[in-house]
Amino acid sequence: METNKPLTPDRIMGMISAFQASGVLKGAIELGLFTALGKERKSADQLAEEIKASPKGTRIMCDFLSVHGMLEKVDDHYQSAPDAALFLDRNSPAYFGSVGQLMATKDIFTPFMDVASLVRKGGTTLQGQGTVEANYPMWVQFARDMVPMMMPAAGFISELVCKDLDAATPLKVLDLAAGHGVFGIEIAKRHPGAEIVAQDWAPVLDVATENAQKAGVHDRHQRIEGSAFDVDLGDGYDVVLLTNFLHHFDAQTCTDLLKRIHASLNDGGRVVTVEFVPNADRVSPPFESCFSMIMLATTASGDAYTFAELEKMFTDAGFNQNELIRKEGLPQSIVVSKK
Amino acid sequence: METNKPLTPDRIMGMISAFQASGVLKGAIELGLFTALGKERKSADQLAEEIKASPKGTRIMCDFLSVHGMLEKVDDHYQSAPDAALFLDRNSPAYFGSVGQLMATKDIFTPFMDVASLVRKGGTTLQGQGTVEANYPMWVQFARDMVPMMMPAAGFISELVCKDLDAATPLKVLDLAAGHGVFGIEIAKRHPGAEIVAQDWAPVLDVATENAQKAGVHDRHQRIEGSAFDVDLGDGYDVVLLTNFLHHFDAQTCTDLLKRIHASLNDGGRVVTVEFVPNADRVSPPFESCFSMIMLATTASGDAYTFAELEKMFTDAGFNQNELIRKEGLPQSIVVSKK
Repeated sequence: METNKPLTPDRIMGMISAFQASGVLKGAIELGLFTALGKERKSADQLAEEIKASPKGTRIMCDFLSVHGMLEKVDDHYQSAPDAALFLDRNSPAYFGSVGQLMATKDIFTPFMDVASLVRKGGTTLQGQGTVEANYPMWVQFARDMVPMMMPAAGFISELVCKDLDAATPLKVLDLAAGHGVFGIEIAKRHPGAEIVAQDWAPVLDVATENAQKAGVHDRHQRIEGSAFDVDLGDGYDVVLLTNFLHHFDAQTCTDLLKRIHASLNDGGRVVTVEFVPNADRVSPPFESCFSMIMLATTASGDAYTFAELEKMFTDAGFNQNELIRKEGLPQSIVVSKK
Repeated sequence: METNKPLTPDRIMGMISAFQASGVLKGAIELGLFTALGKERKSADQLAEEIKASPKGTRIMCDFLSVHGMLEKVDDHYQSAPDAALFLDRNSPAYFGSVGQLMATKDIFTPFMDVASLVRKGGTTLQGQGTVEANYPMWVQFARDMVPMMMPAAGFISELVCKDLDAATPLKVLDLAAGHGVFGIEIAKRHPGAEIVAQDWAPVLDVATENAQKAGVHDRHQRIEGSAFDVDLGDGYDVVLLTNFLHHFDAQTCTDLLKRIHASLNDGGRVVTVEFVPNADRVSPPFESCFSMIMLATTASGDAYTFAELEKMFTDAGFNQNELIRKEGLPQSIVVSKK
């Protein structure tokens, strides 16, 4: 900060009001504003008719989005900014709007209205265990909508797991808390010898099964319904996929789960963990470091774990080799642990 | 936007997640984090004890604020950024935290969780008329906490109204929807001949009366309790202060109110209106233009009006001269209208 300029509260006011931009962008996606615009220029009145909303509300929303650079306004007509046109128009192959909706879903937005209570308590103000309660409804939507965000990591991991394998080599894979299932499905698509066993709550697993059918790998995609902590996970696995799961729980719960996973693996088998992993300073990289706040807001005891913390959990569970892989362009890191 | 760089969804994801920063900063102010820090460096554990919160929650909040530049983290110790130390420490004379709290108060935060419904409806999803329902409780807090944000405009207006007046010249001032009352009180402080009549709901007016007592001008500070639309406003006024009020209502309601005000004024009397006034393009200046979104979210029919729109209301109500004053550094504009 320059010292010769007088300090103003502008930065503080901007940050404290930033929720407005989140809400407006989320609302615009939900209303299909960017889809209605496509690559055209339209007036607020035209748009209001197409998105079935009030002219006044549409005008105010569009002006707000113009100020925030998501639209461009020329002579009372609005046009999507290039990134908004690419990622927020449902007709675009790069559509990312579903992810946007989820990032600001009510289950996450609500606890952020009262962060003081979260910080006092040290955990979510949602009921019980928060979003990790059995059959918490949000996860079905997550499974449906998070796919675009997970595809880059899923592609990278399938390459990592399948490289140097002959097509016929059998590979038994447990996809734990599979959700959408794309991590296992990408492996099945790449490696004909792969058999995927996907575990999750039944309603979520239905999304994975649907995705496996669409990908044409459902004959090699089995199901285990129930909680990862209670259900019989089977055994004989070469690979266990543990993607976006550990951050929901405290270290002891994670370690206990890793022991169950260890028991289900063949000797020499691997766990591939996908996590947001902050550096030891916990303030870099930015997204990974801030992710712990989402866990504080939505779970009773979750966190974003450093590599040292993850390593300790795996070591305590009997694994003897852990490698951290950070890949440019992937929001998450990958930890490969060997039995 | 540079065309040779591939587009990423980063800007969209940043905007849609921005509510987290609002929530965390608001929570930190509420917990007194910046007050506990003062100008020192403290660890999360120390801070947790001082702000009576969990060590884990405190650590996560402080790391989040460090990533967002409100704290600086060195060796597991946190320090307030210069602007945070100046404006968010209760012991600082420039404390602005109360305003910050209000900008993200639940009554505003909540409707922004469902902007799609606001835009469909063209008005607030809060009950009834939203925040302009009779005796809406938020306004007492507003009256208490908005003072630091209003002082620069109040100072400017008192100068504007009182210049060229002899100390003994009588000046009868109606402070409509007075709230904290500081617009009238600043005039009373500057001009010994001023008599202020402050109107608002009784519980809000109590704050104005309290402030008038603190300022030592309570003997020239009278009260009219009730709604600006129904109550007898009296007459013989030289100046009517109409600050931050019109934006809550539709144009017709504003015009009707202005007729009542017109009738209460002496010939040659002035209305001094304080408003967020967007330019005719409605996307500049940014804050003023975005303000209409807050009105959409919290009122049934409010808006941020351009000068042309305000001019029309005043002309329709019988005023024959309107001047727009924009002053560098003031978030609001001032319109002076003559009878």
